[in-house]
Amino acid sequence: MKKISILGSTGSIGTQTLDIVRINNDVEVVALSAHKNIDLLEKQIREFKPKVVAIWEEADAKILSDKVKDLDVKVCFGMDGLIEVASVCAADIVVTAVVGMIGIEPTIAAIKAKKDIALANKETLVCAGHIIMPLAKDMGINIYPVDSEHSAIFQCLDKNNPIKKILLTASGGPFRGFSKKELENVTLEDALKHPNWSMGKKITIDSATMINKGLEIIEASHLFDVDIDDIEVVIQKESIIHSMVEFKDNGIIAQLGTPDMKLPISYAIFYPERRYISEERVDFSKLSTLNFLKPDLDVFEGLKMAISAGKKGGSAPTVLNAANEWAVDKFLNKKIGFTDIPRLIGLAIENHQFKENPSLEDILSLKQWTEEYLERIKI
Amino acid sequence: MKKISILGSTGSIGTQTLDIVRINNDVEVVALSAHKNIDLLEKQIREFKPKVVAIWEEADAKILSDKVKDLDVKVCFGMDGLIEVASVCAADIVVTAVVGMIGIEPTIAAIKAKKDIALANKETLVCAGHIIMPLAKDMGINIYPVDSEHSAIFQCLDKNNPIKKILLTASGGPFRGFSKKELENVTLEDALKHPNWSMGKKITIDSATMINKGLEIIEASHLFDVDIDDIEVVIQKESIIHSMVEFKDNGIIAQLGTPDMKLPISYAIFYPERRYISEERVDFSKLSTLNFLKPDLDVFEGLKMAISAGKKGGSAPTVLNAANEWAVDKFLNKKIGFTDIPRLIGLAIENHQFKENPSLEDILSLKQWTEEYLERIKI
Repeated sequence: MKKISILGSTGSIGTQTLDIVRINNDVEVVALSAHKNIDLLEKQIREFKPKVVAIWEEADAKILSDKVKDLDVKVCFGMDGLIEVASVCAADIVVTAVVGMIGIEPTIAAIKAKKDIALANKETLVCAGHIIMPLAKDMGINIYPVDSEHSAIFQCLDKNNPIKKILLTASGGPFRGFSKKELENVTLEDALKHPNWSMGKKITIDSATMINKGLEIIEASHLFDVDIDDIEVVIQKESIIHSMVEFKDNGIIAQLGTPDMKLPISYAIFYPERRYISEERVDFSKLSTLNFLKPDLDVFEGLKMAISAGKKGGSAPTVLNAANEWAVDKFLNKKIGFTDIPRLIGLAIENHQFKENPSLEDILSLKQWTEEYLERIKI
Repeated sequence: MKKISILGSTGSIGTQTLDIVRINNDVEVVALSAHKNIDLLEKQIREFKPKVVAIWEEADAKILSDKVKDLDVKVCFGMDGLIEVASVCAADIVVTAVVGMIGIEPTIAAIKAKKDIALANKETLVCAGHIIMPLAKDMGINIYPVDSEHSAIFQCLDKNNPIKKILLTASGGPFRGFSKKELENVTLEDALKHPNWSMGKKITIDSATMINKGLEIIEASHLFDVDIDDIEVVIQKESIIHSMVEFKDNGIIAQLGTPDMKLPISYAIFYPERRYISEERVDFSKLSTLNFLKPDLDVFEGLKMAISAGKKGGSAPTVLNAANEWAVDKFLNKKIGFTDIPRLIGLAIENHQFKENPSLEDILSLKQWTEEYLERIKI
């Protein structure tokens, strides 16, 4: 019996992880956490019978406690609650499917408690990869990527040959091929219409700005120990090729599939076994063509900034990421325009005090500094 | 020091194998064989200093012996000579790059002498896969595929998960998209113009008829122990995807690269190490699109026949292959037309006496029967 804890169980990756649990009879859910969807979390508690759950706000925890008082479940809240769910004794593997830097502390807690990680929270590695990766090595635990691109790269590795280059594919998002001018006038509704993938709102906006691809470059560089310069973004608009690895002999191994997150989720949980059986398979005769493009870094400035922050390292990715989280939230609330997102990120990176090797504490205070700075400069 | 013997050293694969030897300083050529190119074989002997060489005709062996009498090399001829080159004590690995069924006996001899095989002679597995594969297992030797497609499949294997389907890619050859009518009027010159690969004449014609893809299906079914029904031909006209493996979870692993046979040759010799550094790499931004098509089995009747012979098994693939060798030779000598090739193969298969589990002797006499039958029926 594999025992699993899920951080962020009511989101897109969380609910699909529970779908995978449903179709396998040797996985037991021991802990769950949600941000604020009390009703769905209650349903999940009733169905999966975890021993511990967490919800962000104390008030919500009280409401939830009351709803599930007929059950034997401990309800926690806040960061302590998240950390308890992440490090619960019974778990073998923790799926980190929360969105944003909030995932850093619980991920570190899970690793320290010797849990394997199914990593769906890329912000953790973006900001704290230099802390997380050596810690994982020291603790002897495995980090299995859940992001479709990183899972693809993981599936393409060759234990006998080092990676020469990672070819990280991107759909290009809803604004692929747009000019700088055209990008200025896009609306929230436009940005939320991703052509290939149905995902949470934050990542959908990150795909539209292509900052998501920048975060993925930094994530990949930590996960696979590859220089940022050896990671090339290839726009593959059909999202059939999920990423590729190039070796010394210029041979390339690629992973392909339909856009279905359940495959990488299942692969991360049951590695090395491929278990999940998707309903669809790629039909090359129907597919007819795969199209490739280079990303336009002058138009998608956020991607350019992320690459540059990744090369700079240190505190730069944290500020990039914190500014992006802040700006996307404002954009989702229609407080700022689409092209304000990279503009504000640029300002925050430019004006922060660079630190070479930030500690966890530094990372958390850089996040706070970034938010305060952006509030202060108004828009 | 890896010690290598090459059967067919003056052909396309043979000369490229020697290119690979040249750029590595830990491979020694211990034996070579050629069909009839005395001059090139002499040059190869002077450069690589093998201990044993073979040439097909006794008369040619005498001429060659005379030319190299200043060197310490044994010159043999005929099938005995080929077998001596294949099983020479000093060799660790034998590259079987001869064309046609002539490769069967030396390959068996090499396996019995416990040599690993770098297999570039697909006819061997097509006709005698049911003998070769169990023998290789019994002798504990490895068969490393050299064909670009089979090398690709080999590179995509996952030791933890069985193959569900092989997606065998094909360029479609020079007549991709032709109608049955159009195919009737093609000339030898047209058929020899392969769009993507520069290869020997026999395989170039086999690519034009797509019988090559049929032979590859049968070869793959033996090499990877997969049913013919689970091998799907995907036309990928740019020859960038060299083949793919689909797993239970519908995830697909593909191998991609420029069309350069030195990569699979080097991979077969130095497996699991990727050593060869090709001059070119795939540039996706220049590539722009990959196009996929289903093969038209009504137009490319030879492919249809090969699939059906593969499913039938027993003696059918041998007769298919022997008839194809005979017909391609006649077509190369302008004695028959392009569409006569599948027509004659069809007649031979239809009229032969089917045998369920042919022995090596049966295979060789089926070859002889097929040739005599085709000579007899005239055209």
